[in-house]
Amino acid sequence: MKKLINKPEDFVRESLEGMASAHSDLIKVHYDPAFVYRADAPIKDKVAIISGGGSGHEPMHAGFVGMGMLDAACPGEIFTSPTPDQMLEATKCVDGGAGIIYIVKNYSGDVMNFEMATELARSEGIRVLNILIDDDVAVKDSLYTQGRRGVGTTVLAEKICGAAAQQGYNLQQVADLCRRVNLNGRSMGLALTSCTVPAKGTPTFELGDGEIEMGIGIHGEPGRKRQVLKSADEMTEILMRSLLEDTAYSRILREWDEDKGEWVDMELIDPPLLPGSSVLAFVNSMGGTPLSELYLVYRKLAEICEQQGLQIVRNLIGPYITSLDMFGCSITLLKLDDEMIKLWDAPVKTPSLRWGI
Amino acid sequence: MKKLINKPEDFVRESLEGMASAHSDLIKVHYDPAFVYRADAPIKDKVAIISGGGSGHEPMHAGFVGMGMLDAACPGEIFTSPTPDQMLEATKCVDGGAGIIYIVKNYSGDVMNFEMATELARSEGIRVLNILIDDDVAVKDSLYTQGRRGVGTTVLAEKICGAAAQQGYNLQQVADLCRRVNLNGRSMGLALTSCTVPAKGTPTFELGDGEIEMGIGIHGEPGRKRQVLKSADEMTEILMRSLLEDTAYSRILREWDEDKGEWVDMELIDPPLLPGSSVLAFVNSMGGTPLSELYLVYRKLAEICEQQGLQIVRNLIGPYITSLDMFGCSITLLKLDDEMIKLWDAPVKTPSLRWGI
Repeated sequence: MKKLINKPEDFVRESLEGMASAHSDLIKVHYDPAFVYRADAPIKDKVAIISGGGSGHEPMHAGFVGMGMLDAACPGEIFTSPTPDQMLEATKCVDGGAGIIYIVKNYSGDVMNFEMATELARSEGIRVLNILIDDDVAVKDSLYTQGRRGVGTTVLAEKICGAAAQQGYNLQQVADLCRRVNLNGRSMGLALTSCTVPAKGTPTFELGDGEIEMGIGIHGEPGRKRQVLKSADEMTEILMRSLLEDTAYSRILREWDEDKGEWVDMELIDPPLLPGSSVLAFVNSMGGTPLSELYLVYRKLAEICEQQGLQIVRNLIGPYITSLDMFGCSITLLKLDDEMIKLWDAPVKTPSLRWGI
Repeated sequence: MKKLINKPEDFVRESLEGMASAHSDLIKVHYDPAFVYRADAPIKDKVAIISGGGSGHEPMHAGFVGMGMLDAACPGEIFTSPTPDQMLEATKCVDGGAGIIYIVKNYSGDVMNFEMATELARSEGIRVLNILIDDDVAVKDSLYTQGRRGVGTTVLAEKICGAAAQQGYNLQQVADLCRRVNLNGRSMGLALTSCTVPAKGTPTFELGDGEIEMGIGIHGEPGRKRQVLKSADEMTEILMRSLLEDTAYSRILREWDEDKGEWVDMELIDPPLLPGSSVLAFVNSMGGTPLSELYLVYRKLAEICEQQGLQIVRNLIGPYITSLDMFGCSITLLKLDDEMIKLWDAPVKTPSLRWGI
């Protein structure tokens, strides 16, 4: 293992210390339990948005805390869910009285702990709605997941819903918007190499020379299959075809029902990516893949979108939801409407995403 | 070699095509000869700033073309200098009548070709001043360099001088500022792994398990020495000590003298980084090293700055001047004055650096 770290067990805390030191104008860090929050929180009468999950996906989520995006992020240990007490303390810290949205990637540990935090917060009189993101079309169930995994659309949901909350949307409006973003988003990724978790010190899995894992999970979970690494164009075609062929997928999500006061199963049907749609195209590095290669993927993606009658009206290209030092990339296509475009363009000021201010 | 590429010989062009497709609101690409330029160029009566160099260091330089930074960038093939005709055509394209600054990293090929372009442009009646960046304290001469190599300070000079030009500084003022930024900047890097150039397909050099190259060049050139990889804190201490001990280094730079109409040697003495100085701290990924590790380096860097009485008033953390997929990092410390701080904070809108707009 060749990494710039001290002791593996100190990695997450020391990385947060570096963030706190670098961005004290934007964020503060609470260490026990660990969460990162807006330096100006709580903001009275604003819906607060909290996300979290295992560390190792930086800049997600802590790098997205700030004006126009998240109010707080709860980092677990590497690839390990944060605990309900982290979430609860973050919730109390940023609660401005207008309710809280938890944006939760669909992994069993995250789902369970955010559900517990939801109930704990409600028992303290704080209204919380938690919204699952499950956009990864690669596999229906996975190593740590019942149903689809939550990946790239999470970043886009955090930006769009963060802007909505900043502009005064109420709790139900932000929740409805977040569900719509999730339904409109589809992602899939591939790995050229495994990541290496610091505490383990060896690669999570082995890939042969010239072999890739198509449909990789962001913790190195198996995807659809091992196959030969072909050209960037061919790899992009496979990813894009997987997204575009995923035209109507019915999903069951468990959500808290405000009126009934209980957990209910909601059945959701994804709207397909039809010709004529406006989309946001997000090409993400898994960590080790450099920007120059992402532009090759974008180039082919744009060509395919044009052939399919999809109009790319916004894009995002870079390392935003990573898997430590893994080489590889993922593609997310998010179908946009005018409201989402306006919210995407709204000012944002976080350590790792900033514009308009 | 595991990369997302098509044919190695098409890599630079296809990556530029991806950029052009993704950022058509900000930049345009001319392919033969190759240069990237501001979509709104030329801007009448504004000093234009052009940089360039071998590809493989993305986002530098093409990712920094746009409002408040570069007017044009000339990308060579991977780790290969661009040619004088690229520079000349870029110069004619963005010339707004107020003169041109070439920001040139100190590598023999770049220096020679930018000097030739300077003379060609002048013969066509365009005033050009070229300013060398030679901030790498690792070695005095190197594989492709007489004198110090130009590295991280280049990014900072492009931002600060780009803002100055945007605000109406004249040619001589931008040139003087750029020289001052270079003199105030010091950098050094280390590599945990070699990069792999697509056309070669194998690592440029070999590092053993647990071995690093201290003082690495951005093309994989040898640095000061091979040594054992120690903790992030110890690695950061070595880099920082190298920068801080470099207190007075006299350098000879060859520059065009406007009045004499000839090339002259200028002797420059770096001002030391004295206690009480305000600095910009720039922690850069060589490409493969993820953000979470950069924050560990920043954490220790900030601690050392505090011990040394240096006040970090601005910072930049991420992959900005890379070496393809190399694992490793570099640190740049730039001594700031009030003018530079104001220019650093000025709005910028490029594919890879954006704020305030």
